[in-house]
Amino acid sequence: MYVILVYDCGEKRVGKMLRLCRKYLNWIQNSVFEGELSEVQLKELTLHAKKIMKEEEDSMIIFSSRQNSWMQKQLIGKERGSVDQFL
Amino acid sequence: MYVILVYDCGEKRVGKMLRLCRKYLNWIQNSVFEGELSEVQLKELTLHAKKIMKEEEDSMIIFSSRQNSWMQKQLIGKERGSVDQFL
Repeated sequence: MYVILVYDCGEKRVGKMLRLCRKYLNWIQNSVFEGELSEVQLKELTLHAKKIMKEEEDSMIIFSSRQNSWMQKQLIGKERGSVDQFL
Repeated sequence: MYVILVYDCGEKRVGKMLRLCRKYLNWIQNSVFEGELSEVQLKELTLHAKKIMKEEEDSMIIFSSRQNSWMQKQLIGKERGSVDQFL
C-alpha cells in the first residue's frame, strides 16, 4: 500500500514519533512521511504510534491507497534537510 | 486531479497560507489539505502560494495523482476542530 502519513503532536512526543515513522517510511517534510507498507506493517506502525501519542492532544492522519503508483510530488520553497537539525 | 497539500512556513505567513489553501482544498489537519483540482486550479494555487511564501524559509509539498479515487484516510487521536482556534 502506498502511504502518506502526517502527524501533529506535542513537542515532548515529536522526537519519538519522528524516530518511529522513520523506521517505516521516508521523511519528506516536518511531520510528513511517505512510503510503501504492507497492511501488517501499517498496523504495527499505528499500534506503536498510539502508544506514543496522547490521543486527547495529538493527531495523526494516514492516507493510504492500494494503487501501485505513488503520487507525484512537487516541492515549492526550501528543501528540508535532515530534521535532526532542529530536534 | 486528487491533491494532498502540506506546508511548513513561518508563523507570520501561516494565516495567509491557510486562507489561500482553504479556497481550493479541504482542511484536514494543521497545514494539511486535501481535495480535487483541475490542472489550472493547481497552477493558480501554486502561483499564489509562491507570492505568500518566503522560499528560502518556507516549504510546501503538493502530492497529486490523476487517479479518480481519493486516498483512504485514517485518523488517530484528536480530531482537529477548526484551526481558527489557534490562529
